[in-house]
Formats: sequence, C-alpha cells, structure tokens
Amino acid sequence: MANLVTNCGFSPSPAVKAHCNSPSYGHNFIRLQNSKSSTSSLNLKSSSKRSNKLYVTCASTAVQGQTQTPLTGSQQASGQSSSKPKKVMVIGGDGYCGWATALHLSNKGYEVAIVDNLVRRLFDHQLGLDSLTPIASIQNRIRRWKSLTGKTIQLFIGDICDFEFLSEAFKSFEPDSAVHFGEQRSAPFSMIDRSRAVYTQNNNVIGTLNVLFAMKEFSEECHLVKLGTMGEYGTPNIDIEEGFLTITHNGRTDTLPYPKQASSFYHLSKVHDSHNIAFTCKAWGIRATDLNQGVVYGIRTDETAMHEELSNRLDYDGIFGTALNRFCVQAAVGHPLTVYGKGGQTRGYLDIRDTVQCVELAIANPAKPGEFRVFNQFTEQFSVNELAKLVTAAGAKLGLDVQTKSVPNPRVEAEEHYYNAKHSKLSELGLVPHLLSDSLLDSLLNFAVQYKDRVDTAQIMPSVSWKKMGAKPKTVSV
Amino acid sequence: MANLVTNCGFSPSPAVKAHCNSPSYGHNFIRLQNSKSSTSSLNLKSSSKRSNKLYVTCASTAVQGQTQTPLTGSQQASGQSSSKPKKVMVIGGDGYCGWATALHLSNKGYEVAIVDNLVRRLFDHQLGLDSLTPIASIQNRIRRWKSLTGKTIQLFIGDICDFEFLSEAFKSFEPDSAVHFGEQRSAPFSMIDRSRAVYTQNNNVIGTLNVLFAMKEFSEECHLVKLGTMGEYGTPNIDIEEGFLTITHNGRTDTLPYPKQASSFYHLSKVHDSHNIAFTCKAWGIRATDLNQGVVYGIRTDETAMHEELSNRLDYDGIFGTALNRFCVQAAVGHPLTVYGKGGQTRGYLDIRDTVQCVELAIANPAKPGEFRVFNQFTEQFSVNELAKLVTAAGAKLGLDVQTKSVPNPRVEAEEHYYNAKHSKLSELGLVPHLLSDSLLDSLLNFAVQYKDRVDTAQIMPSVSWKKMGAKPKTVSV
Repeated sequence: MANLVTNCGFSPSPAVKAHCNSPSYGHNFIRLQNSKSSTSSLNLKSSSKRSNKLYVTCASTAVQGQTQTPLTGSQQASGQSSSKPKKVMVIGGDGYCGWATALHLSNKGYEVAIVDNLVRRLFDHQLGLDSLTPIASIQNRIRRWKSLTGKTIQLFIGDICDFEFLSEAFKSFEPDSAVHFGEQRSAPFSMIDRSRAVYTQNNNVIGTLNVLFAMKEFSEECHLVKLGTMGEYGTPNIDIEEGFLTITHNGRTDTLPYPKQASSFYHLSKVHDSHNIAFTCKAWGIRATDLNQGVVYGIRTDETAMHEELSNRLDYDGIFGTALNRFCVQAAVGHPLTVYGKGGQTRGYLDIRDTVQCVELAIANPAKPGEFRVFNQFTEQFSVNELAKLVTAAGAKLGLDVQTKSVPNPRVEAEEHYYNAKHSKLSELGLVPHLLSDSLLDSLLNFAVQYKDRVDTAQIMPSVSWKKMGAKPKTVSV
Repeated sequence: MANLVTNCGFSPSPAVKAHCNSPSYGHNFIRLQNSKSSTSSLNLKSSSKRSNKLYVTCASTAVQGQTQTPLTGSQQASGQSSSKPKKVMVIGGDGYCGWATALHLSNKGYEVAIVDNLVRRLFDHQLGLDSLTPIASIQNRIRRWKSLTGKTIQLFIGDICDFEFLSEAFKSFEPDSAVHFGEQRSAPFSMIDRSRAVYTQNNNVIGTLNVLFAMKEFSEECHLVKLGTMGEYGTPNIDIEEGFLTITHNGRTDTLPYPKQASSFYHLSKVHDSHNIAFTCKAWGIRATDLNQGVVYGIRTDETAMHEELSNRLDYDGIFGTALNRFCVQAAVGHPLTVYGKGGQTRGYLDIRDTVQCVELAIANPAKPGEFRVFNQFTEQFSVNELAKLVTAAGAKLGLDVQTKSVPNPRVEAEEHYYNAKHSKLSELGLVPHLLSDSLLDSLLNFAVQYKDRVDTAQIMPSVSWKKMGAKPKTVSV
C-alpha cells in the first residue's frame, strides 16, 4: 500500500484543538483548527525508491521534556546506570493495543518509535467498518501527544514485510526493545475467504521473520516482546501452563513447548510465529518474550484519556469486535447480547490498562540472550455466559434493559469445556491487575452509550462462518 | 516462473532411445533420437491468461494398457467395487520422492497427474548444483513411461501458490487423493539467507493452504497425503509418538498434538503445515494423513530402474544431499565422510522404495472425513557415526579406502541425545521394509561409483551455517 506522509512530528501550538463534529468515516472527521507546522527541528527523510512503496522516515529528534528514564527491574539489577532513555520500537503502534502501549511507554520515559503501515485503517474501509470512537490520524495523534507532553514519538510508515523498509527503521532507531503488535489480529477476518487467510498467515509469519532477521542483523541485543495469544493453546482438557509443559512419558521426563491447538488461520499464524521465534532464540541467541494475551477489553488508559485526539479505537463489529467490548456496545444500543452457541466458551480476559502494564514489565525485565520466554497475559477467566450476565447487571444499573440471544456459533470451537490457564509470571514481575468490576463495566458501558449514535447495527451480527468459508473472494454486501 | 510446455503426453515410437552423452547441465544432456509426436488422442489445453503465467493443462486421455485397478484396504472394506481407477494428484511429482512415487502409483494402476512448477531444477541452476544421476526433462520422463508401459501420466506445470492454476488442476483432474511433496525440502537451503528462509516458509505454508482450499472447494472427498518430516519433533528427551501424545497433568488427562521443536526454517514450515492441516480437518472435515518422513536414501525403485530416462535424481551436495546418499558419493570419489560435529545425531531413515510403498498404503487406507492422522514414516534409526561405519565397511568390500572426518557442525542441534521414535502405524497397514543392509549399500555405492565423474567435489562440504546466516542475499562463489 502506497502511503506518503509529507510531514510528521511537528510541534503544533497548544492552541490546536480538535473537535469531532462529523459522523463521516475515517480520517476526515477530525478537523484541526489553527494548526501550525514547524519542521525546523526535524531531520526529515523522504524516500521513494519504488513507485509503489513510498514511506517517510522521521529520524531522531531531541526528546524534549524528558523527565523520567526507565531503569527498572533487571536493568537496575545489572547495574546499568546510563540516563539515556531506553528505546522501544512499537510495531503496529497505530492499533488498539499498540497505540495505548506506545503512549504509555512514552509517558513512562521510554523513547518510542511507532512502525505501522496503517493497514488496520484500510480494513475498515474495505469491510465498511468503523471504530465506535472517532480516532485521529496517526500524524495528528502524535502531534497532539507532543503538544500535551512535550514527548516525541517517532513514526515509520511502512510494511514490515518489506525488509528494506524494516532494515532502515532498525538502523535509524536502534531499538533496545521491539514490541511487536504488527499483525492482522482478527480470527474472523482470517476466516472470511482464502485470500484473507493467506494474507493473514503471510503477513504475520513473514513480518515476524523479518523482525527476527532485522534484530539479528542490526540489533543483536534488542529484546523482542511479541504479542501472541492465549488462543494458541486452544481448550485442552488439562491445565494450560505458560508456554512449556514438563511431561513424564514412559519413565522419562522433558520440558517441552506446550502443545498448540489453534482454531483459526489467525490463531494459527501466532502458533507459527511462536515456533519460529523459539528457533531463532536457540539458533541465534535472540532474546524474546512471547506474551500470550487473552481477550482485551476497555477503552481508556491514563494517556489516551488525556485528549480526544489521543482516543483509542473500539471495535464492536462481528469481525474485529471482541466479546466484552462488543457486548457493551450491544447493551448501549439495545441490541441483544449475541452469545455464540451455548456460551460456555471460557477464555482469559484483561483490561487494556493491564496490556500496557504487562508490556512495560516485559521490557523492564528483559529475557536473557537466547531465552524464549512465554507469559500468559490475562488477569481473569470468564465464560461468554458469565460476561453476558455481568453486562446485563451493569446495564440494569444504568437503566438499560439488556437482553441476551443465543446465535448459531459461526466458529468451530468447544462450547462447554475445561479451562484453567496459569498466569502467574507477570504477577511475579509486579503486575497489579485492574479486575473486571461493575465500575469498569459502568465506564465502558457509559462510553458505549456516549457514542451509540455512531453504531452501525448491521455490523453487529457475525458474518463469517468457519465452516462455510470458501476459496472465492467474499465481497461485502452494501 | 513462466513455463510454457508446448506439447505433452504424446506417444513416442518404441524405437525412441535416449542416451546421455553430455556432462552438461540439465535438460540439454538428453537427446532424443527418432522422436515422433502424436497428439491426436489428446485433449490439449493451453492457457496463457497472464503474461508471466503460462501453463499447460493436459486433460485426461484414455488410460491404455490399464491392467490393475487399485481397490485395497478400506476401499474394499467399504464395498467400493467400481473398476474405475483411483486418481492421484502427485504435487511435486518431478522431485526425488515425488517422481519415484508418481511412477510407482501409475504402475500400480492409479491414474496419476503430476503437478509441479519444476522449481527444484531452477535451484540447481541458481546454486550451481546438479544431480549425481543425469535426469531427463519431465516431458521426456513422462513420454518414456508411456512408451514403456502404455500408461499416461498427466502433467500440470505450475505453481500451487497460484490458486487460479491449482483450481484448474483440481477441477480438471478431480483427484481422489492428493499426495503433496510440493515444498522446498532442504533445511540448509532455508538457512542460506533471509530471502530463502522467507521463500521456504511462504512457498510451503501458502502452497499447502491453497491445496486445502482447493480440496474444500472442489474435491471435498479427496484425501490429502502430506509429506511432513520427523524433524518436526526435534530430539526430545522422551519417546516420540506418532503425532499425538497422551498427557496426564495435575490429575487430568488429554491426548494432544505432540510438541514440536523444529530446527530450521524448512522444518518449521512443516510444523506450520501440520497445525494448519489439523485445523482444517476439524473445521471443514478434510481427511488428511501427515507422513512424518525420516531421511530417505537410495536411488532405484522398480519403476525408475526400467530405463535411464526414468532415472531419479540423487543429491550429494551440502544443500540438498542427505546423510547416507552424501556419504556414499563421498566414499565413491575418495572424499572423507563429513560427519558434522560429534556424529551422535540420531534420526529415522528409510529406503526410497519404502517411501513409495508408504504413500501407496496411506492412499489405499485413507483417513476418515475430519480425521488428521499422523504416521511416522521411517524404518530404522541410525546415528551419523553409525552410518559412517556402515559406509566404511561397505566401501571396503568394494576396495574403497573410506576415511571419516569430523567437520564443524553447521547446524544448531544436539550432537548426543536420546532418540526413540515410534513407527508402527505404517507397519500395521502392511509396510514390509527394505532394511539398510550391505547389499543396499553396495548397490547405492556402486551407483555412486558409476557416476563419480559427474561429482563436483566443491559441492560436498557444508556451505550454510545456521548461526552465521544473515539477512543479506548470499551469492554463490563461482
């Protein structure tokens, strides 16, 4: 996808204000007033080496207003005392988890660069979807962050499947850590048709391979913090451990990778990544942490709440909307909560405020060279039926009459099953979870109510069937 | 890769003779004398839909001289009594295992189609390698087979990563079984540089995804027989089972996919395939057999021995040559046997005559709809040191003074380890193995001696390092 950014990283006047006065789609809905641009302090490089690959590299600018230098955990333990801020590359930093993480790390004093091709925004265009919350362009997001905090976030617009682009980003930024959210992250998207399945596996697997090669070639000390998924494990009839399982078999014992039973082409792509990363840790001495994340809910973090132009996206549709977020929006607009099948599907969940905290903990306590470390990143387990009950109760407190409706399960998955997944490693590093509570539901529900006029109810029902997916390109009905 | 076949499947005169009188590379070394072509009985379709994608589909011709109809195992048990021969698509049918299998199945009365983009021959050109044995073009191979046996093998030249091509092949041929050898199959090749690593995973994973989609879309009853590798398991410190492992953990028990620890980007690609295939069996009801094959040795099968134009390829180089084949060629030319590191690396091995037998058994006893079945396909275990001793002893009988030399291990692998892999499922279906014996070594050694003038000794030593591989394209020194 060609994407030419003609300016970036300038420091707008504090008087710049955004208001969201249009329900129309995408990047047009935010209008900047009195915007001023200044590129005088920037080293701006524009490259256009191939006709269909345009990207801009914003090289380092002095970090102004830097008040903290992150030196925690093993960095302190190892006696590192440099006051130079640690550099974190956030790949996929324009997405739901990535944007919240980029701001959080910047706020904590890390020097942050976002690497993103913005394809998540393209998916919305192609599928006729939109975030519940209006979101600003990545350029305006970064400008707003700079104007509010004085902190610079570098921006590298491009595709990590393009190794030339990725190499330049690594060489230019020289990250200490690379947080990799830069994958197609929807199971239903990967099950729309053959081309989306192939896209998902190619994009995710090859993109991650490129990151591994870039680390080997340009940043051997860099710590990879890779977002995996709890979905890699499936729903085995035994306890789920964190990445590895000690097995005694025929009188001998070994600790082996936990068996994987993923249930969509997306989840499978993460399984493939995990195997590839584990190999490169062993063969090349890469240091990596695989964060097998549960289902994320929530919208606000301390940083995204600072200004509406910093607002995070919230997906409620049948493709990108995850269970709890989707339920809250359904409750807000008076749509029955759509429980797929029997609703006994149990998964691990976490607040997006814990996502950003977990990533920070992983960065601050890096894996050793050659170590492939797996953390299960969630805080509580719920079944879909339990979530529906919680949303119903919270809705009642807001005066909402919330109904629940069972719809045929579009997925192929067990609807009643044993589920007990361990998740102690991040707690041991200091995670203090935000637990799902009425107050959070109120907050998320209130948010949904606030934006309910933006809801397109046609997007709520599941539109992708695991069993019926076909090879032919599936077009979206208008 | 563009590839236009201008004629195929004609019936040459029995007087056609080939002789190999030139040591030069590839398809030029075989000259046909008195060749006559006849396309009168053929329904020849040529399609050239895109400028860079040319392929020819040779549609069905009447199978002449058909004397057998394969109706064994579960086909008999299920009361199928049609005398129509079963159709087998051999993807990668021009390669080492694929060619031997295609001929074997054709000889057994199956109606065979080869699907291949011939890229294995391109790798030889690009890397400056060559088969020890002269091999005919795929067109001449198929013509020769027809002239000797009266049996037609259909040929579809194209890339299975091109779904349009693959769809047409499936729709035209309507296979009952698809035997899938069509992958980049060398671990060292996948470790040359980033582009080969990416090529290997993309080609193998996406090609297999396309095969799965083609089966779902066009041949729901088709049985996939997929070549995996014993290398998917790595070298765990417990017994290796056939695909699945029953695990008791914290008082609960489940049978789960056997944990995978592959040790090259190639081996990893097969791990990815296995996970993808298992999912489609569950989600779509695909029937699949994953043949986790050991290291194949040998050159002759009953069919390839019928004529020198049917000869199989034999690789002895550091990229494509596997341990025993390589050792025999080294012994023949007086090169020390190159043992990597300590030589305690133990693997499963099998004769290529057993490869073709195993595939036949898998086809004749298909998996049930929705079943993902895994067979470990090897007959004996040997360490590299054991192989070196066997070759040394066999060489002595031929008057060869065979030396062994330890070379630094280019791979990252345990050089001393426990290894006990189960392999009973194919025996239960009727596999009668050809065990490694002095007579076989004599035969393989004699073959190597016969062609020793074709050996390029510069290709013998390992040239690819697991640890040193880089992101930059690696060129071959001339």
